[in-house]
Amino acid sequence: MAKLEVGSLTTRDDCVALDANDVLAPLRGEFTLNEGEIYLDGNSLGPVSRAVLTRVNEVLKTEWGQGLARSWNDAGWMEMPTRLGDRLAPLIGAQPGEVLVADTLTFMLAKLIGGALDQRVDRHVVLTDVANFHSDLYIVQAMASRAGRPVTVKAVERGALERELGGDVALVMLTQVDFRSGELLDMKAITKMVHDAGALMLWDLAHSAGAVPIDLSGADADFAAGCGYKYLNGGPGAPAFLYVRKSWQGVLENPLPGWLGHARPFDFEYLYEPAKGMQAFVTSSPSIIALAALDGALDVWDRVTIDQVRAKSLALTDLFIELVEARLPGVFEIVTPREHAQRGSQVALRHPLAYGVIQSLLERGVVGDFRDPDIARFGFAPLYVRYVDVFDGVERLVDVMDAEGFDDSRFATRRPVT
Amino acid sequence: MAKLEVGSLTTRDDCVALDANDVLAPLRGEFTLNEGEIYLDGNSLGPVSRAVLTRVNEVLKTEWGQGLARSWNDAGWMEMPTRLGDRLAPLIGAQPGEVLVADTLTFMLAKLIGGALDQRVDRHVVLTDVANFHSDLYIVQAMASRAGRPVTVKAVERGALERELGGDVALVMLTQVDFRSGELLDMKAITKMVHDAGALMLWDLAHSAGAVPIDLSGADADFAAGCGYKYLNGGPGAPAFLYVRKSWQGVLENPLPGWLGHARPFDFEYLYEPAKGMQAFVTSSPSIIALAALDGALDVWDRVTIDQVRAKSLALTDLFIELVEARLPGVFEIVTPREHAQRGSQVALRHPLAYGVIQSLLERGVVGDFRDPDIARFGFAPLYVRYVDVFDGVERLVDVMDAEGFDDSRFATRRPVT
Repeated sequence: MAKLEVGSLTTRDDCVALDANDVLAPLRGEFTLNEGEIYLDGNSLGPVSRAVLTRVNEVLKTEWGQGLARSWNDAGWMEMPTRLGDRLAPLIGAQPGEVLVADTLTFMLAKLIGGALDQRVDRHVVLTDVANFHSDLYIVQAMASRAGRPVTVKAVERGALERELGGDVALVMLTQVDFRSGELLDMKAITKMVHDAGALMLWDLAHSAGAVPIDLSGADADFAAGCGYKYLNGGPGAPAFLYVRKSWQGVLENPLPGWLGHARPFDFEYLYEPAKGMQAFVTSSPSIIALAALDGALDVWDRVTIDQVRAKSLALTDLFIELVEARLPGVFEIVTPREHAQRGSQVALRHPLAYGVIQSLLERGVVGDFRDPDIARFGFAPLYVRYVDVFDGVERLVDVMDAEGFDDSRFATRRPVT
Repeated sequence: MAKLEVGSLTTRDDCVALDANDVLAPLRGEFTLNEGEIYLDGNSLGPVSRAVLTRVNEVLKTEWGQGLARSWNDAGWMEMPTRLGDRLAPLIGAQPGEVLVADTLTFMLAKLIGGALDQRVDRHVVLTDVANFHSDLYIVQAMASRAGRPVTVKAVERGALERELGGDVALVMLTQVDFRSGELLDMKAITKMVHDAGALMLWDLAHSAGAVPIDLSGADADFAAGCGYKYLNGGPGAPAFLYVRKSWQGVLENPLPGWLGHARPFDFEYLYEPAKGMQAFVTSSPSIIALAALDGALDVWDRVTIDQVRAKSLALTDLFIELVEARLPGVFEIVTPREHAQRGSQVALRHPLAYGVIQSLLERGVVGDFRDPDIARFGFAPLYVRYVDVFDGVERLVDVMDAEGFDDSRFATRRPVT
């Protein structure tokens, strides 16, 4: 994946050659992408694949259409949350029986935060990153306020985490890849530090699942959750996933229980008694159609390893950074870390008119996205992004910066909703 | 809809004639139903309609496939929860801007229970029906345990509700149509009684939305929620809906907040500030594919009124009761009330071998379902169930009871999972 000519700038021909030798290149054909468009927004919403169309229509026409209510048994709908969890487990370094797919990410976080706080009743602080995604911050504050004792949420700068990790910290909640900067945190080292302080560790994997190798077992992480619509390509608002380490199962309680998580759901008992294993974290019937979309989206992982994806991801982001620096020297601050070990699968460029840059790129067929106040964010999803896309994307960025000059402020105050 | 020959048993020819004159008859063609099968389980899962297939594939192929992340704006995905809520509002007697569609029913109940308890901090009891659906019972116990003060859940016999409605009751939560017996409660009278006691009223409409006329506004109900997969035909695990009376909006707080419910979601503020109106009850991105299915399913309501549906529903359940009593006298206890004002859209028959009855009917192409310990449950969804289906269904039930004798216990201990 290295540059073909050491010491000189990568050319478009080099990129064509890299694509020709790319083992992942055949997978691009599985996805629906607009002709001529360069989609660098898979970190927001991945594209639809052929397998998704097939699987969803199989549910609509056959499982629901013909099987009707019988399909809860006959088509395995009851087991879909745990079966999809097991499919997803290898991508995040989990064991079979440690992952569940259902609901949306914020509800999954609510279950884990509520459950975790009940396990450390003598402690009164949840520690998180002030740069964490905002839904995470809102739900942790909400669940802390219902912990049954005074619990304070401390959202601190990342560099202050270690200092703040005192003996009163019950839970640390962090997102492995920063949604804005793309910084990748050291899961193993941080989890160890948290455990050494006697606290529990909850990882949000929204921006890392399907993009970087994750080893929850190796890191001895307690809990994790993530969404299905970014690098997992499960569709808009796709079901989320939840990880509870085996040793916590049967111990951690689901604070948002429902009948499908009951040990005997069809006995209709008055008191809740949790099912064994991950089933206890199912609440009520999740959308089977939504699960089917994610099920189809996971098919691609039968043909590719996360290590192959990671290798190409780093090559793509390296290439993007190289070309931006060479073609637009000094124009952007590259916020994303240069060190591979600290980089997710996106590159964030800082510019005072970042919103306008993203809008102008859109007009030229390059889809990135903007994050307030000054970040232009580009995701590089190796399953369908090519080296030539990176090259052409940077060329169009050069066109934008040349054409607009970006000394006018026509975009400065508008905000996108993507 | 009356019987054609007063005083004599309705014949199959009568049923054919009733179907020929049925204004709802043309709607049956919109749904996928198995040839020769009689589907009396729409109270569990409604069938798929043509509009659902169209709408879901439009989302898959165009909105997601081509629009990608832009469709959050360009295809109105951001507004889908409130737009679908407004579509659904007339079915439940709500005003525009009072209903939201997202998540699943148990989460919606969690939001309302948690929010309601915060509004009556001087009261310490939630009153509910011991025959309520079990997910409702589990989530109310869970949310009561996180109310920040001691709150007791009292689940009592329906007849004892009035007696238990003391000055310490903060919230009453009832399901309008009993999932087992099909009994329809008097929403207006009960809501008034609850309000007279100074408590708040939360209605679960799972078994009534799309089946009986509901007048939340007229009853002055505070809160309600229901699911989309029964008489609304939104698909397995379809999104749920939530109703918050206008006067509670801006007052009731969402205990499970997320970024999409924030007043300024794209400003990424650290503190949660609720959006105006129902948007504050959105948590994180709901599945757009699942919402699209329900969106398509609601199309049929552009062509029919709930009063037309109710009239046929009562005619169908009257007919079923009449035929069961005439053809199988004394064999079943008819649990569902005879009085129209107390009947939902299902009929429950009690029999010690009810599970076996349902299994044997399945083998003969009649789909009902079983509810522990001894209820055979039959739903009559007027959008696609015909009078002849009722007639033929009872004839097959007669065959079952004749053939099996039902003195053997081959089915007595098995339990279905539907």
